[in-house]
Amino acid sequence: MAAKFKLLVVNGPNLNMLGKREPEKYGSQTLSDIMSELTVVADGLDVELTHYQSNSEQALIEHIHSAWQTIDYIIINPAAFTHTSVALRDALLSVDIPFYEVHITNVHAREAFRHHSYFSDVAQGVICGLGAMGYRSALEAAVHRLQNSN
Amino acid sequence: MAAKFKLLVVNGPNLNMLGKREPEKYGSQTLSDIMSELTVVADGLDVELTHYQSNSEQALIEHIHSAWQTIDYIIINPAAFTHTSVALRDALLSVDIPFYEVHITNVHAREAFRHHSYFSDVAQGVICGLGAMGYRSALEAAVHRLQNSN
Amino acid sequence: MAAKFKLLVVNGPNLNMLGKREPEKYGSQTLSDIMSELTVVADGLDVELTHYQSNSEQALIEHIHSAWQTIDYIIINPAAFTHTSVALRDALLSVDIPFYEVHITNVHAREAFRHHSYFSDVAQGVICGLGAMGYRSALEAAVHRLQNSN
Amino acid sequence: MAAKFKLLVVNGPNLNMLGKREPEKYGSQTLSDIMSELTVVADGLDVELTHYQSNSEQALIEHIHSAWQTIDYIIINPAAFTHTSVALRDALLSVDIPFYEVHITNVHAREAFRHHSYFSDVAQGVICGLGAMGYRSALEAAVHRLQNSN
Amino acid sequence: MAAKFKLLVVNGPNLNMLGKREPEKYGSQTLSDIMSELTVVADGLDVELTHYQSNSEQALIEHIHSAWQTIDYIIINPAAFTHTSVALRDALLSVDIPFYEVHITNVHAREAFRHHSYFSDVAQGVICGLGAMGYRSALEAAVHRLQNSN
Amino acid sequence: MAAKFKLLVVNGPNLNMLGKREPEKYGSQTLSDIMSELTVVADGLDVELTHYQSNSEQALIEHIHSAWQTIDYIIINPAAFTHTSVALRDALLSVDIPFYEVHITNVHAREAFRHHSYFSDVAQGVICGLGAMGYRSALEAAVHRLQNSN
Amino acid sequence: MAAKFKLLVVNGPNLNMLGKREPEKYGSQTLSDIMSELTVVADGLDVELTHYQSNSEQALIEHIHSAWQTIDYIIINPAAFTHTSVALRDALLSVDIPFYEVHITNVHAREAFRHHSYFSDVAQGVICGLGAMGYRSALEAAVHRLQNSN
Amino acid sequence: MAAKFKLLVVNGPNLNMLGKREPEKYGSQTLSDIMSELTVVADGLDVELTHYQSNSEQALIEHIHSAWQTIDYIIINPAAFTHTSVALRDALLSVDIPFYEVHITNVHAREAFRHHSYFSDVAQGVICGLGAMGYRSALEAAVHRLQNSN
Amino acid sequence: MAAKFKLLVVNGPNLNMLGKREPEKYGSQTLSDIMSELTVVADGLDVELTHYQSNSEQALIEHIHSAWQTIDYIIINPAAFTHTSVALRDALLSVDIPFYEVHITNVHAREAFRHHSYFSDVAQGVICGLGAMGYRSALEAAVHRLQNSN
Amino acid sequence: MAAKFKLLVVNGPNLNMLGKREPEKYGSQTLSDIMSELTVVADGLDVELTHYQSNSEQALIEHIHSAWQTIDYIIINPAAFTHTSVALRDALLSVDIPFYEVHITNVHAREAFRHHSYFSDVAQGVICGLGAMGYRSALEAAVHRLQNSN
Amino acid sequence: MAAKFKLLVVNGPNLNMLGKREPEKYGSQTLSDIMSELTVVADGLDVELTHYQSNSEQALIEHIHSAWQTIDYIIINPAAFTHTSVALRDALLSVDIPFYEVHITNVHAREAFRHHSYFSDVAQGVICGLGAMGYRSALEAAVHRLQNSN
Amino acid sequence: MAAKFKLLVVNGPNLNMLGKREPEKYGSQTLSDIMSELTVVADGLDVELTHYQSNSEQALIEHIHSAWQTIDYIIINPAAFTHTSVALRDALLSVDIPFYEVHITNVHAREAFRHHSYFSDVAQGVICGLGAMGYRSALEAAVHRLQNSN
Repeated sequence: MAAKFKLLVVNGPNLNMLGKREPEKYGSQTLSDIMSELTVVADGLDVELTHYQSNSEQALIEHIHSAWQTIDYIIINPAAFTHTSVALRDALLSVDIPFYEVHITNVHAREAFRHHSYFSDVAQGVICGLGAMGYRSALEAAVHRLQNSN
Repeated sequence: MAAKFKLLVVNGPNLNMLGKREPEKYGSQTLSDIMSELTVVADGLDVELTHYQSNSEQALIEHIHSAWQTIDYIIINPAAFTHTSVALRDALLSVDIPFYEVHITNVHAREAFRHHSYFSDVAQGVICGLGAMGYRSALEAAVHRLQNSN
Repeated sequence: MAAKFKLLVVNGPNLNMLGKREPEKYGSQTLSDIMSELTVVADGLDVELTHYQSNSEQALIEHIHSAWQTIDYIIINPAAFTHTSVALRDALLSVDIPFYEVHITNVHAREAFRHHSYFSDVAQGVICGLGAMGYRSALEAAVHRLQNSN
Repeated sequence: MAAKFKLLVVNGPNLNMLGKREPEKYGSQTLSDIMSELTVVADGLDVELTHYQSNSEQALIEHIHSAWQTIDYIIINPAAFTHTSVALRDALLSVDIPFYEVHITNVHAREAFRHHSYFSDVAQGVICGLGAMGYRSALEAAVHRLQNSN
Repeated sequence: MAAKFKLLVVNGPNLNMLGKREPEKYGSQTLSDIMSELTVVADGLDVELTHYQSNSEQALIEHIHSAWQTIDYIIINPAAFTHTSVALRDALLSVDIPFYEVHITNVHAREAFRHHSYFSDVAQGVICGLGAMGYRSALEAAVHRLQNSN
Repeated sequence: MAAKFKLLVVNGPNLNMLGKREPEKYGSQTLSDIMSELTVVADGLDVELTHYQSNSEQALIEHIHSAWQTIDYIIINPAAFTHTSVALRDALLSVDIPFYEVHITNVHAREAFRHHSYFSDVAQGVICGLGAMGYRSALEAAVHRLQNSN
Repeated sequence: MAAKFKLLVVNGPNLNMLGKREPEKYGSQTLSDIMSELTVVADGLDVELTHYQSNSEQALIEHIHSAWQTIDYIIINPAAFTHTSVALRDALLSVDIPFYEVHITNVHAREAFRHHSYFSDVAQGVICGLGAMGYRSALEAAVHRLQNSN
Repeated sequence: MAAKFKLLVVNGPNLNMLGKREPEKYGSQTLSDIMSELTVVADGLDVELTHYQSNSEQALIEHIHSAWQTIDYIIINPAAFTHTSVALRDALLSVDIPFYEVHITNVHAREAFRHHSYFSDVAQGVICGLGAMGYRSALEAAVHRLQNSN
Repeated sequence: MAAKFKLLVVNGPNLNMLGKREPEKYGSQTLSDIMSELTVVADGLDVELTHYQSNSEQALIEHIHSAWQTIDYIIINPAAFTHTSVALRDALLSVDIPFYEVHITNVHAREAFRHHSYFSDVAQGVICGLGAMGYRSALEAAVHRLQNSN
Repeated sequence: MAAKFKLLVVNGPNLNMLGKREPEKYGSQTLSDIMSELTVVADGLDVELTHYQSNSEQALIEHIHSAWQTIDYIIINPAAFTHTSVALRDALLSVDIPFYEVHITNVHAREAFRHHSYFSDVAQGVICGLGAMGYRSALEAAVHRLQNSN
Repeated sequence: MAAKFKLLVVNGPNLNMLGKREPEKYGSQTLSDIMSELTVVADGLDVELTHYQSNSEQALIEHIHSAWQTIDYIIINPAAFTHTSVALRDALLSVDIPFYEVHITNVHAREAFRHHSYFSDVAQGVICGLGAMGYRSALEAAVHRLQNSN
Repeated sequence: MAAKFKLLVVNGPNLNMLGKREPEKYGSQTLSDIMSELTVVADGLDVELTHYQSNSEQALIEHIHSAWQTIDYIIINPAAFTHTSVALRDALLSVDIPFYEVHITNVHAREAFRHHSYFSDVAQGVICGLGAMGYRSALEAAVHRLQNSN
């Protein structure tokens, strides 16, 4: 019996405030709600999903390091680090795991500095503005890609 | 009984070459294959889906005009017009229909001029690099949004 | 008896949606209403006025080509093509007919990409933000200029 | 009986040289000639027109201040101050009177620094390249707008 | 007995409209109100305060020239001249008097052209967005600095 | 009896070196000295003041999260993070607490990269170059604003 | 006997006006004259030449699509579309036919916006300023290249 | 007997502070000293020299207007207005008198904003960094040019 | 009998390495081979051809000076000097001989700094990416132009 | 007997992945291998070497703080923080210890955003592209500089 | 008896063509004529003048090297090297001799790339547009400066 | 017995002035001193070292050409040509010899135009600010690289 695919969802700074922070922009679900729902989807797809959130760039980097040779696909919402963290980008490159970049809001409709990402050119795909559904879309697409690259 | 939601998928220039053109980038499915699969998904979601492709900016503009007060949500892959057509952007604004912008490839990993879109800031969301699955993700998210805005 | 001056009004893409599209920006008059009123003014000035609108860059180009050695002055609202169409600019240069550029709204108060025009530097004048009256102002000024250049 | 609308025409630096300065660009009429003709038009429209020209930024600012709660519409040709005077812009904002910006020549066909205006984005409209007729067009449009906003 | 420190407050164009102009931005106090209150603070600190406002760049320049070897510290709100007047900057440099730059509103939250100042790099400090209290903060800091440099 | 206003002072990286680091630029007071003096001022104004310094972006973010619905006003000197931390900006936005931005030195007189701040456009005001007195000015202005918004 | 090489010459918008439009820049030959002469050269080189001109971006795109697996080399003068049409660029990429880019005039000696081409970086070569002879040079070079790559 | 050539020297804002202001940069001569010496040189060249200094842009503009058809050559040190006054540039153009631009210091060795001049491209020549001798050089060159253009 | 036209081919730095250097980019022909073939073509066109190559900017400049009033047309491949030598540009302008600019490779497909030329805007035409045939095309076009300008 | 010089080597984020991450770029040695070899060199030069690596900006900052008045020279490879961390730059400035900046790869041959460093202008020297030997070169040069500044 | 001051005039590439090249821009005097006249002036001022022209950057650099500790002042017209030669700039810095930069024409009225100079910021002064008299003005100013710095 | 590795050190313009020119920046050693010391190091490493300096771009180019198929590694300090010579860059590319780029001073701490190099992106490594030791570091690293690539 083949081993299940292992996927990791990584969420960056301030996403622990989801449901509190600017609900008109980010919705009223908490991150915990969203990840619970996503786990149900993952179960339905018969893949193993883990989740990690941190406000610490270091913690995020080291969590990604620990995924090396363990995780098959990463779904990352780097939040504010999208626009500033070369170190997080390098962490993803260092473990050589394919990833999708997800943003809950449409970053292109916000401040100009949010239009540049240090991740998009090395991601396999980018999703923004789909709300919490963006994680689900990324999950389904990642599983599809893993299944078809076998 | 409530009327079904009506969604329109619009594809821009050169997408009729899908399956021929650079299959390593765009996959070997033809546009017709993709749209057939998408219709199955739409049926499953109990929504009505129509599709339109043209290499003509005028034809695209006028098809969008004809959607006025008829279509509930548009999923558009403006292809090359993404980077050059203010007229198509204005057509979408003129009919005041919400829309998602979809790209089959990850435009952020291609030429610099493909990093700017005349659509992203007025779209509700943007998906790129998910291959043909991007249309499906957009469809599901659009239906979700329509159902929850009722 | 001297021949009447012949003037052509050219309107670009999406202007057929006038009266529908964003009425708070463009007013509730249709393009047809505006052109009817303008014809009355032209009659009063004893000049011959024709009007052409298209969403097709090609059609606009070829209509301008057909004006060669026939039309004395052009009043053009290139709409979205203002910011993108070198081909339309070249069509105007190719027939060597003087022209005014008109915009219904004040483009300087809108998105940054609307601040650049491919027409303004080769137009004889530019009018924006006067609503439908902009056409009338352009008409009167064009007639004045034609009468005084004789 | 309703009070007449009161309009103010403001002309900036060097316009007192009109008729002398570069007549091939600005025409041979003096500013005084132009304003006399404009007054006739204003009389025909049954509105009250006053005119002020100065080479002094301070004088222009203070004349605009004095228009506060007195004048219904301003037509301003800021001349060289178009490109340099934030103070004049702020004066117009401080009295909260709507205004049109007029230029006798087509500034878009001149030096690059004349393509930027500190006024256009807060004006209701902009007219350039219509020669002295630009004032008349602005006057007619302003009166039209005042009459229709009542 | 030591002579009192002499401070000069200089206010630039349109600030005479304070209390009239956009009160939601600038508050409802007049400039005269603000300066009266500031004089009370100055008296409490036992320093001599004079105040000068003008809409004329020349008058401001010459008032600063007259402060040469007389005034110990300048608090200046250059208003619109902040962004355009090299001459006023040079006037301050020519008299070699240290100064603070004050803005009533937060210029960083306004139009892009208000983000550049010809004064900030040669000022000793910059205060913006504190409303009328900005003058008081500048006054207290200036006195503190003068007392500690003795 | 009304509850006291609660204010939080947040200091960013390297400010723990104050008094050691480049005293000619930053003064010889330690951060602890400055905060002690500031507490005396706060007591005089009858408000409650807390202080937090960290060299860790994560720690600063989470301290701000913890201020949610607890603190009335924040005074923040983001130090080097001023120019690089979108995450800290987002933390402040997520708790929706008004804040002033303070810099001990005049950043406009230093390296070009210090002229841009990720905080200024969302702050209520910005103070720089007043030395340690900048905190006091911010405190007084914050209290004034809180008292007058009641 | 080996099949003849097949070459396609594509001309973009406004080139149908050749001989009328600005003859001092473009010469007095019509496009038809030029293509007739070019056909004679092609016959002499024993290759098959077809020609297509359109003012329609769509028509040009679809003509290029139809060349797929049929045409060995394209010589294209995109005219105004040189500077604006990503769609035409993509059409050429989609059929994977090598091409030369030709301009009758020296675009480097004209307006700045004519200095950028969406074609040059993916063309095999670029010729400008040789007048109608540019087509002949491109034809000879293309045939040379085809013969030597066999 | 031929009339003498008439030359006008115009000095801009803050130059009345010469001899006081930053003597290490501008020398210890007053403007009056410099102009007296220059008059001696003018007498020696048998030309008529007048001089005008003002801190007022308006006064400078109107002095230049009054030179119309009277003065043969202008030597202007626009000082700070060099970098900001389009109105002064336009005044010089309006009277159509050739002029040299003079700066006492080497503006290229100072702040970046002093590297751009609104005068240099329409001047006949520019001299900077020669101290007060720059005026003399300009005078001699102007006289030479006038004598040789006769 | 009319004198033959005299043409000069000038080749810039490193072109002496042709055939050695990066043959996949520049071909395996030496410069000497190419020039021999070109001479045959020139003979066939009954014109006189000379050739000069140098790695020295000075030598190239002085060779061009020596062409003054002797040579009818120059074909120049400035190689690396294309992007850096204003002096070579000025040499060409100083002798007032028309010229074509030739590049063996397609410079538009190489490093960004190779996209700018100090020659193209003053050349009569530019050819790149045709390999050694570019010289021949330039030669034929130059002769054609000379013959038709007689 | 003179005290030994004390040197500190600081390595930034992701360098703990050396030997794993992209070995074709960074080599197959681990950081621990490199530092062991470097210690041997330090011993040979009779200096004391310590080493610190962290993925945490805070930890790096505080380690540098702790070097204050203890360490004579720092050799730092800021890795991804090179391009983003003003805070780390400020930490180095705050302890006033001279330093060399080292990169294992040639950053100039990589992505454009890696061409800018927040450290180079305040470093005493910069070494990149020498692989692990870069540390050794820096060490030898630092010791040389320390010995010669005594 | 004091030694005479020694001055060196250096002229850059193409200036040997003076009198031939574009006489309407540069006048009809040859360089030799100009230098002869200048020598007369130098004799009158009792200083020793030498002159050097070359089209070779190397020759110019080495001539300047040879001036080290010999020449008191340099007057240089770097011609085209103004805009391109850092090496010549460095040569001047390496010998530490003060210099004036002279241009015969007004470079500010020519192509944009001629507005930047690698010399102006390290020159003591810059003269342009005075024709051949510019050398004389520079000579007189240099002698004046040398005499007054003694 | 294996042949010794052959290395070439190339030094660009003005480096012959070392020891004279700005000794506080470049040290008091002459170039000859430095090369002598370097030869000793080369001997110790059992490699053959030659050295070439010139102020002539041509001479440097041709010396590099002569290294083709002879020299194993180049160490080049292009000095001022770093920032301006595409021709020298191309010479290095044409001989296909790997090289290190060395600068004696830290170019990143000097004028902005010294921050760009035409060599760094094609070099294998770059060393700056190590003084004369930079050559030694480059030599050791080059030998190390050569020995390990065997």
